[in-house]
Amino acid sequence: MSDKLHKTAITPSTHTAPPAKFSHGVRKGNILQVAGQVGFLPATPGHSPTPAGPTLREQTVQTLANVKAILEEGGASWEDVVMLRVYLTDVEHFAELNEIYNEYFADLKEAPSARTTVYVGLPAGLLIEIDALAVLG
Amino acid sequence: MSDKLHKTAITPSTHTAPPAKFSHGVRKGNILQVAGQVGFLPATPGHSPTPAGPTLREQTVQTLANVKAILEEGGASWEDVVMLRVYLTDVEHFAELNEIYNEYFADLKEAPSARTTVYVGLPAGLLIEIDALAVLG
Amino acid sequence: MSDKLHKTAITPSTHTAPPAKFSHGVRKGNILQVAGQVGFLPATPGHSPTPAGPTLREQTVQTLANVKAILEEGGASWEDVVMLRVYLTDVEHFAELNEIYNEYFADLKEAPSARTTVYVGLPAGLLIEIDALAVLG
Repeated sequence: MSDKLHKTAITPSTHTAPPAKFSHGVRKGNILQVAGQVGFLPATPGHSPTPAGPTLREQTVQTLANVKAILEEGGASWEDVVMLRVYLTDVEHFAELNEIYNEYFADLKEAPSARTTVYVGLPAGLLIEIDALAVLG
Repeated sequence: MSDKLHKTAITPSTHTAPPAKFSHGVRKGNILQVAGQVGFLPATPGHSPTPAGPTLREQTVQTLANVKAILEEGGASWEDVVMLRVYLTDVEHFAELNEIYNEYFADLKEAPSARTTVYVGLPAGLLIEIDALAVLG
Repeated sequence: MSDKLHKTAITPSTHTAPPAKFSHGVRKGNILQVAGQVGFLPATPGHSPTPAGPTLREQTVQTLANVKAILEEGGASWEDVVMLRVYLTDVEHFAELNEIYNEYFADLKEAPSARTTVYVGLPAGLLIEIDALAVLG
């Protein structure tokens, strides 16, 4: 009825259509979920997705930009995020991740989100994947 | 008080009792969380859980059926899911996963959920695990 | 305005400041998210974080204590948790994890939370990491 919650797909203009039947982000009620993002540059029609570069720094900054684009398209910001899940491929990357992370989030006004960092396998060439859960309102 | 939210365990008839003190799914308020499901066939009393087969396709279809059983037992459907976490064991399985996934979700009416896919270790013989977060209402 | 939800960082006295710009836990509205916890003993000023011991049992019990400290500091308890994500490093640890888990949660009154257990890489010496999502109210 009129107060039934609607689930909305979020697809920023910087993103290609997802490679399968999932959404880059979805919002339902005050919950916004961002799908796992990697360090691909903004989509160029007719070209395959390309990572921002081979380094952790390049990929992390781009991955965070990709998460942010979805948050903003969905009416949210970093201030609304309650959880970031960070998937790295190499435990040796932890210190550098934190350095980049701290620079990136230096100006947060609200409490920073919680975070879990674990080490997994990712497709060749990708060093980081991040997803996010935001609560709006 | 009367408006205190109640947390309810969800145990479909197709499922064995969980192997530890967790629930296959829980619902509290309008949040429904499905625990990590694998490709086990419906439980048969007195028998150990058995995967639907050795292939990614067999296990993925069964895993999705197991997630769905919990959603439905909890009063939800795929249309309510905001996030699916897919754990594979082999990056070579990504393309086939997407093919199966797209077939399975071809008839969704609402926006498809967000998704994160990472590559982890799973118990011997298991190729996929999936959990889900749904927002009802 | 007056009914805008506020996001609150949760930092129990047992915890060091997070090693990067994230919160050990955050609460916004009725959602409480606990960041990935490991088996570090309560913080001692001037000392590096130290695991409770080398065994799965020692680390699991301490990790659960660390999750619990955050839940309680945020006004929640195990009864409010809808999802625990358990990251192990070795599939051989599953049976022992369940044993410890069942002992630990023997006295739960509400439905136990859902759970996903996967096997990932963690920093050297750490055998388990756990994060939690709670819904209050």
